[in-house]
Amino acid sequence: MPAISKKGQLMPQSPIRKLVPFAEEATKNGKTIYYLNIGQPDIKTPQIALDAVKVHSLEVLAYTRSEGSEEYRRKIANYYSDKDIEVNHDDIIVTTGGSEALLFAFGSIMDVDDEIIIPEPFYANYNGFSTSSGINVVPVISKIEDNFALPAIEEFEKLITPKTKAILICNPGNPTGYLYSKEEIKKLATIVKKHDLFLIADEVYREFTYDGNTHYSIMQEEGLENHAIMIDSVSKRYSMCGARIGCLVSKNKDVIQTALKFAQARLSPPTLAQIASEAALGTPQSYFDDVIEEYVERRNVLIEELQKIEGVQVATPKGAFYCIAQLPVKNSDAFAQWLLENFDVNGETVMVAPAAGFYSTPGVGLNQIRIAYVLKKESLIKAVHIIKEALKVYKD
Amino acid sequence: MPAISKKGQLMPQSPIRKLVPFAEEATKNGKTIYYLNIGQPDIKTPQIALDAVKVHSLEVLAYTRSEGSEEYRRKIANYYSDKDIEVNHDDIIVTTGGSEALLFAFGSIMDVDDEIIIPEPFYANYNGFSTSSGINVVPVISKIEDNFALPAIEEFEKLITPKTKAILICNPGNPTGYLYSKEEIKKLATIVKKHDLFLIADEVYREFTYDGNTHYSIMQEEGLENHAIMIDSVSKRYSMCGARIGCLVSKNKDVIQTALKFAQARLSPPTLAQIASEAALGTPQSYFDDVIEEYVERRNVLIEELQKIEGVQVATPKGAFYCIAQLPVKNSDAFAQWLLENFDVNGETVMVAPAAGFYSTPGVGLNQIRIAYVLKKESLIKAVHIIKEALKVYKD
Ligand SMILES: Cc1ncc(COP(=O)(O)O)c(C=O)c1O
Ligand SMILES: Cc1ncc(COP(=O)(O)O)c(C=O)c1O
Repeated sequence: MPAISKKGQLMPQSPIRKLVPFAEEATKNGKTIYYLNIGQPDIKTPQIALDAVKVHSLEVLAYTRSEGSEEYRRKIANYYSDKDIEVNHDDIIVTTGGSEALLFAFGSIMDVDDEIIIPEPFYANYNGFSTSSGINVVPVISKIEDNFALPAIEEFEKLITPKTKAILICNPGNPTGYLYSKEEIKKLATIVKKHDLFLIADEVYREFTYDGNTHYSIMQEEGLENHAIMIDSVSKRYSMCGARIGCLVSKNKDVIQTALKFAQARLSPPTLAQIASEAALGTPQSYFDDVIEEYVERRNVLIEELQKIEGVQVATPKGAFYCIAQLPVKNSDAFAQWLLENFDVNGETVMVAPAAGFYSTPGVGLNQIRIAYVLKKESLIKAVHIIKEALKVYKD
Repeated sequence: MPAISKKGQLMPQSPIRKLVPFAEEATKNGKTIYYLNIGQPDIKTPQIALDAVKVHSLEVLAYTRSEGSEEYRRKIANYYSDKDIEVNHDDIIVTTGGSEALLFAFGSIMDVDDEIIIPEPFYANYNGFSTSSGINVVPVISKIEDNFALPAIEEFEKLITPKTKAILICNPGNPTGYLYSKEEIKKLATIVKKHDLFLIADEVYREFTYDGNTHYSIMQEEGLENHAIMIDSVSKRYSMCGARIGCLVSKNKDVIQTALKFAQARLSPPTLAQIASEAALGTPQSYFDDVIEEYVERRNVLIEELQKIEGVQVATPKGAFYCIAQLPVKNSDAFAQWLLENFDVNGETVMVAPAAGFYSTPGVGLNQIRIAYVLKKESLIKAVHIIKEALKVYKD
């Protein structure tokens, strides 16, 4: 029997998926589960986007251009302009989700064994995309005590080698909820210019910033044109994760031309989803205002309730819809599994994501979990109550 | 300015895209172009598939399971069963087009510098997927004089090294239109078992077989369970290329588990397109009968007209909707460009795909073109007439 590849063996399993069999078992046993483990919001997709595919008049569902239709890219450029990000339609390649944009970015700027520095904890699938691209993630640790702020510049510089090709940040952060300040972006700009690196910013949560904080994009930073690659997606912005539309944006022509070759090889992003995504650009500001109000309330309730539990430490998120909580347990992986298998309050339990999978350094984050506040307030209150009760009896 | 990757530099440009700027220029100059260069059929998508997305009642356009919804996979398994291919729903991973299925297959079974043997001419994007996976294509030549039949087994065996991990065939073939016989598949089965290799079959044109010939899938071959990986797609079958739904099918559990890790990293295939594709499975046989009758007529007209031109040699396709024609020119690349730039008959010209891009061996196929018979008969007749007139005056 022929063997699978080493790369395939090394491909990490997502920390979110490992627990799925236990959740399925728990459901079979009649338990109700509050799913706080995945970034799939319960927020309604804008009606305008859902309706757009209902009224299509296509007779042939054909490929679009590999880089996405020009009309759609022009409209995306307008959307960015409203956010004070000035880009042209030909600085944009439409991709199958932010996921594919990350893969194209990695492939366009890195070869096997090249290195990318990423502040950890980070979005777990960066590991998968790195493995599949044959590159190495070099983590720089950010700490819960600092609310996961940008590590000191010296910490980055210590890690730069001739193989370093890029720094990748997620802003606002999944799983940290941290929103980088303009000053932090400027510091990163200085390092990447000094060491001639790329700066990739995954800005798929751009819309979700709280407490009056505004998002500062790497694309707004002057002088960074040849270094900056922005990753974006409609998944979270319009709660349309299933569309699978994202984009890669850069003013660096070599990057765009190269990413385009990857895009052409896979022919085109999904056509129906582009129709929905183009329509979604007409979503009124009131939709976002409502959604943000909702997330802020959820966050406030969640943090408040978590802080009431003895021994629990939380970083207050300023953006996105995740938070990292440190628990008085040794191994949150085992705790999360135990919650599903052996615990319930009146037949209800909780599924959380053990945070170790968001770290690349072994042994770090073992006592942390990530909570996605993608459920209604009442559910969040119940879920945190369950965690509280669980911690009273759990022994590891 | 930081540099792009070596991989990015090596990514080939699709032979179909290179001529696009010339076509755009020609259109600007008022020329009408018959597009015979791309596999985008003009055939209507089954209404049942187009309608399915019009009546959806989704409120949240959410991710589906990474491997595709279970219901859809069960229905795909039924479709295969009707084709005498017996697989289970968990032998199937739904992908974003056949393109992504190829990438997952390559990533799951090959590491950097591993080799894959492919009869050439082959689907040009196999080159792109190989480059992006860091693997090497080892071509084995099939000849227009033999109608592009399977090369002799010895020719394969000569090329097998310790780095060889797989043989890849496309059946029926793009760009050759060749349909492998049961005997040829059995020969391939013998080699891959003897040398413990994988056999990947790209069967996205399964539905399109002519003249009473039936398709024999590698999944029908007993004893090949651990070796066979089938690539499939709804793109051509239902003329819904823009959906971006395909699948990877294998009875080898290691392959499926590994491909699933790649699938999980990118979260999910497009949801709306899965709705359309699931509905498409209800397409009545009469649709296919009509489509096949249409393609056969187009093929017959095309081949007949091409054979009337002095110095032109064609292989008669038994499947798919492409044919390779050998022209009395030295460089079909230059000829194709010249057709767009400098030639027309009453303001009309033709865009064809130079065949060199479908070969991996340098210098082979330079006098060949690929024609996709994706247009109506009347257009094909006019298009071939233009080629005929062009060849009378063209000098290279
Ligand atoms: C930080 C981050 N980046 C990228 C993605 C990929 O999202 P998509 O491929 O749906 O655009 C996600 C999804 O959860 C994410 O959290
Ligand atoms: C032989 C072959 N395989 C795979 C594909 C990929 O198609 P898709 O990604 O649309 O399924 C094509 C498209 O033309 C093809 O011709």
